[in-house]
Amino acid sequence: MTIILKNISPWGRAVTDLAVSDGRIVSEAPAGAQVIDGGGAIALPGLVDAHGHIDKTLLGMGWRPFTAAAGVQSMIANERRLLSEIADFSPARQSARVVDRMVARGTTHCRTHVDIGPDIGLAHFHGVAETRDAVRDRMDMQIVAFPQTGVMTRPGTLELLDRACAEGADAIGGLDPIGIDQDPKGQLDGLFAIADRHGVEVDIHLHDRGEVGAVTLDMIHERTKALGLKGRVAVSHAFCLGSVPDDRLAGLIGKLLDQDIAIMTHGPSGDTPFPPVRRLHDAGVRLFTGSDGIRDSWGPLNSGDMLQRAFIVAYRNGFRRDEDIALTLDMATTGGAQVMGAAGYGLDPDCTADLVLVDAETPAEAVVEHPPRRLVMKRGRVVAENGRLTIEPAG
Amino acid sequence: MTIILKNISPWGRAVTDLAVSDGRIVSEAPAGAQVIDGGGAIALPGLVDAHGHIDKTLLGMGWRPFTAAAGVQSMIANERRLLSEIADFSPARQSARVVDRMVARGTTHCRTHVDIGPDIGLAHFHGVAETRDAVRDRMDMQIVAFPQTGVMTRPGTLELLDRACAEGADAIGGLDPIGIDQDPKGQLDGLFAIADRHGVEVDIHLHDRGEVGAVTLDMIHERTKALGLKGRVAVSHAFCLGSVPDDRLAGLIGKLLDQDIAIMTHGPSGDTPFPPVRRLHDAGVRLFTGSDGIRDSWGPLNSGDMLQRAFIVAYRNGFRRDEDIALTLDMATTGGAQVMGAAGYGLDPDCTADLVLVDAETPAEAVVEHPPRRLVMKRGRVVAENGRLTIEPAG
Repeated sequence: MTIILKNISPWGRAVTDLAVSDGRIVSEAPAGAQVIDGGGAIALPGLVDAHGHIDKTLLGMGWRPFTAAAGVQSMIANERRLLSEIADFSPARQSARVVDRMVARGTTHCRTHVDIGPDIGLAHFHGVAETRDAVRDRMDMQIVAFPQTGVMTRPGTLELLDRACAEGADAIGGLDPIGIDQDPKGQLDGLFAIADRHGVEVDIHLHDRGEVGAVTLDMIHERTKALGLKGRVAVSHAFCLGSVPDDRLAGLIGKLLDQDIAIMTHGPSGDTPFPPVRRLHDAGVRLFTGSDGIRDSWGPLNSGDMLQRAFIVAYRNGFRRDEDIALTLDMATTGGAQVMGAAGYGLDPDCTADLVLVDAETPAEAVVEHPPRRLVMKRGRVVAENGRLTIEPAG
Repeated sequence: MTIILKNISPWGRAVTDLAVSDGRIVSEAPAGAQVIDGGGAIALPGLVDAHGHIDKTLLGMGWRPFTAAAGVQSMIANERRLLSEIADFSPARQSARVVDRMVARGTTHCRTHVDIGPDIGLAHFHGVAETRDAVRDRMDMQIVAFPQTGVMTRPGTLELLDRACAEGADAIGGLDPIGIDQDPKGQLDGLFAIADRHGVEVDIHLHDRGEVGAVTLDMIHERTKALGLKGRVAVSHAFCLGSVPDDRLAGLIGKLLDQDIAIMTHGPSGDTPFPPVRRLHDAGVRLFTGSDGIRDSWGPLNSGDMLQRAFIVAYRNGFRRDEDIALTLDMATTGGAQVMGAAGYGLDPDCTADLVLVDAETPAEAVVEHPPRRLVMKRGRVVAENGRLTIEPAG
């Protein structure tokens, strides 16, 4: 398929045409191409939602009011109860519904943490792996094997995580080694051994705040270095980076840089502390973002729209300047793509033709207005227009 | 004009039909009415944007990057410089552009603070008053005479505010009597005298944090009581309510209740403290919200969409439960309507037919998804559909 997108503005730069052939961006417009008028819209590479939980969304199952008590432990218990009560809950179908929502909003790459634990075994992993295969024509997906109910406190979990990585998980996840497991050495040694054995990435949920989280980051750094995993480890949420004294933060930043550890923040709601985006970026720390859970038992606030997510990260950081807002857009595009190791990502010739058109004057306006996407293209094929799928839904 | 909206869900309750005749909701469907299918959408009364600055938006003038340094004083100085540099700046045209944007997003009532000061005199006030008249068919608008550059530090300002109220301003505004003027007695005595003389409402910007703001609230309470203005005073932003010790907060809440003083918060960006919505509501304090400045020199983050605003207030408060999210919707509807004294507001028979249809299953979903509005009606006339005006724009 050969297409010329006329009258588009890559990253808000001068208006130009962009030619696509055989799923790639090409520098010479081939003869006989289909012409699509971009109307002067901004072209961005496909949005990257690099932290999700698409296996357990309740999308399409009717509005579900939030019912949990406060605190991570009670949220987890509430979720297990809820999911076990839904007789026909299907991680494959549900994750496909999220993918449809994401694609319509311009997301072409996603990394999702998938629950694995003694209660559900690998059922969610197998369901999402099925979806990952089924949606390859519209979404590049990475799966993180995620111990949502804890690791050391749930015997058998490490073995299940190991099996998931043997069966094709792209990364090994973790969860508050101190707050949930009270055994940071046990959890982290177990996770890093799996990463080492299978050659997968590491992406650890770290909600523990202040010094508890900081000590955990120290330990993650130590293991990353010992196993030669530099550049292959990410820490998600990392609330501690927003809740330690300044000199401690400076030391942690040094460790993140030393092992090129990437940090994910989605700009949490409420008064939850979060990593200081501008400071980390200026220091050279790689940053990315994601939707977190979309319409699941953890709450209804996340939408799966990565331009809205960039807006939320900007809003939570108090960003008003174009160059600050651009940081949040980078997190939702190139930052996530880098963490996912997305080959050929971008708008240059020879890049994969994964892109989104947004009616806005500047990239900053694209973030703050996040209007329905004018057009979404995946590997050279138009998959959504004006906020709606133009292909058969997966979910 | 007589219309039957079929198949709509008032406030998310049972699906029903709603009849409109001569600009009012009627209990009996008249014969020969035009039938509009609501598709099961939620019907809400028209959204209320009860804190804006529509005189100085830069909407429609090209994307303007934010250029100010931090701090209220430097923001003000930057704004004066910018506005003075735009030769053809027209508060009438600009405010009309904001009204168009608001109407398309379902807002039927707005209260706007309008800059008045020795440098610009009443020019902005006259421009917005012109717009207020021009848009009466689509928007009920209140004007607050607002001393953006200070009161006591800018001799002549009180006289200008007094003239604006004589010429039809609906309320007298104020600005950080301590932080900006260092003369709380002078500013507040001056403002309240004007309110007393003209019988207008009071709505004071209070950014001063902690005890500085708290002392100012004490003084506002004292003057409200002394002049018998109970129920006619509002305080906007009131960051101090989010930044005083708990016992001090309890005392301030008592004073707000004693004089029925309403509080406005728009859920500020960054780490700005803000009034605790759930606590104030449960105590009985009247709450409302608004867009604040839309695409002006103060920054690009506000959109003029009051369902998005409710979402932001929910997000900043960490609300996940339906009953909490409903609070933010109340602030963007009935709360603001009450502050504005909007007669006949609501969805009951005999109410003015100001309403908006939103494709959502529940009011909470309307807030978190804030999709383009299906239909907006003002006094029985359809003024917008699917997010776009169906009437001649004003701006």
